[in-house]
Amino acid sequence: MFVAAVLEYDGTNFSGSQFQKNSRTVQGELELALHKTFNIYNRVKFASRTDSGVHSLGQIVLINIDNDIPIQKFPKVINDNLPLDIRLREIKKVNKSFDPRRDALAREYIYKISLKEYLSPFESRFLSNYGSNIDFSLLKKASSLFEGVYDFKSFSGSSFNNVKSSVRRILNITCVKKERLIEIRVLGNSFIHQQLRRMVALMIKISQGEYALTKIQDMLFSNERKTLSLIAPPNGLYLSKILYADGLFDTDYNNQITEVEYVNSSK
Amino acid sequence: MFVAAVLEYDGTNFSGSQFQKNSRTVQGELELALHKTFNIYNRVKFASRTDSGVHSLGQIVLINIDNDIPIQKFPKVINDNLPLDIRLREIKKVNKSFDPRRDALAREYIYKISLKEYLSPFESRFLSNYGSNIDFSLLKKASSLFEGVYDFKSFSGSSFNNVKSSVRRILNITCVKKERLIEIRVLGNSFIHQQLRRMVALMIKISQGEYALTKIQDMLFSNERKTLSLIAPPNGLYLSKILYADGLFDTDYNNQITEVEYVNSSK
Repeated sequence: MFVAAVLEYDGTNFSGSQFQKNSRTVQGELELALHKTFNIYNRVKFASRTDSGVHSLGQIVLINIDNDIPIQKFPKVINDNLPLDIRLREIKKVNKSFDPRRDALAREYIYKISLKEYLSPFESRFLSNYGSNIDFSLLKKASSLFEGVYDFKSFSGSSFNNVKSSVRRILNITCVKKERLIEIRVLGNSFIHQQLRRMVALMIKISQGEYALTKIQDMLFSNERKTLSLIAPPNGLYLSKILYADGLFDTDYNNQITEVEYVNSSK
Repeated sequence: MFVAAVLEYDGTNFSGSQFQKNSRTVQGELELALHKTFNIYNRVKFASRTDSGVHSLGQIVLINIDNDIPIQKFPKVINDNLPLDIRLREIKKVNKSFDPRRDALAREYIYKISLKEYLSPFESRFLSNYGSNIDFSLLKKASSLFEGVYDFKSFSGSSFNNVKSSVRRILNITCVKKERLIEIRVLGNSFIHQQLRRMVALMIKISQGEYALTKIQDMLFSNERKTLSLIAPPNGLYLSKILYADGLFDTDYNNQITEVEYVNSSK
């Protein structure tokens, strides 16, 4: 039986999502938990790869399980065997033909920037305080210039394979400012390695007046394709959503709580 | 020059506050940062000892520094050398005679319990989901029975030294319910090892109907002084405030932000 699950994780203490033999990875921990729970050794398949330090609110993972436990009980029994920095939020039966990566229409990432000078130890894993003195309207203007279909080669990490295409479509970017927090939501068909963190880094530099808006076109259209040397830190980045044509998991997203309700205060 | 500082920390990855040779401790990391910043090797002195996994919003630490850097700059320069799970929030010059532990009038701790079935990976370090089906009015009733002067020997950890007095005064306990979060604030003159976590554990069991309210008196007055076997997990516990007669740091607390403003949502 094939099931798809929504996976949340705090990426801080992982060497990324993808399995590596001698590193702590999300995939490695999940496969270990599945082995403990169901005594299976199957490989799981992630919709998107996330780097070291990058979080997830909505990673989708495909799991092949043969077991008599009712499917509604899977999250509870698997979570009992997962470390606390990974939670399996919900699970749905899917067709054998379902491929979480190939079938994904679009991915949404959120980048969270704190505008406070002081980040408490309770925030420092989850927000970036990279960037202050941001001109918010300039940030929005810069972000909109990325919407469309472009070759993002100049925004890729050094590990990027030259043979693969680096053409991607950014469907939408939304910048929201809430008190002393900025959230940049980026919806794209897919992303190349480090693309998002380099896009965010450039937007911020522009919003701070360090580069002109034209720098974006320069980077997107230059023939040299020199990689942008700026990169935003991973701890502000969340893979927030994977969209599928058939609306897999969509309805549940609407029911989600939008605010973390806990409070760290000393009065 | 002697200075007192407010120290915040996420206790998850520390073997407690107190220095230990081969373990990662808050004191060890702070002294290392002071060495890096000022090239000093002085011992620092904490107002209260916190256990492994216990957080701080308002630990007070005494530091002996001789340096020409203006005191207002200390937090910034020290924080630059501290790991992200410890932040020095503010600093004040104090008399040489100041003893953060002995001079403290009272300590306030907060215990945070989530009533949600599901704790996200972004909450699991900071909240305990120990306890559900809590009768909140019964919890308040139970908590009030701890107010006063009692011998808390039955609420101490096994490491508690029998020679020392275990008589303590609980000045006040306040239980607050905010949506799906319960906060128990306990103000006491001082606390013996594990006292607070055992008190909270018993209050919860009573609020769930597993023990009668009389169990509290039984434990406080029994001649046997058998230790209560229940203990609440450390990840819900915060040392929130240290009170001094002269109001050291008090005014600043009033200006503090009461809510963590960041948001983890996927829409």
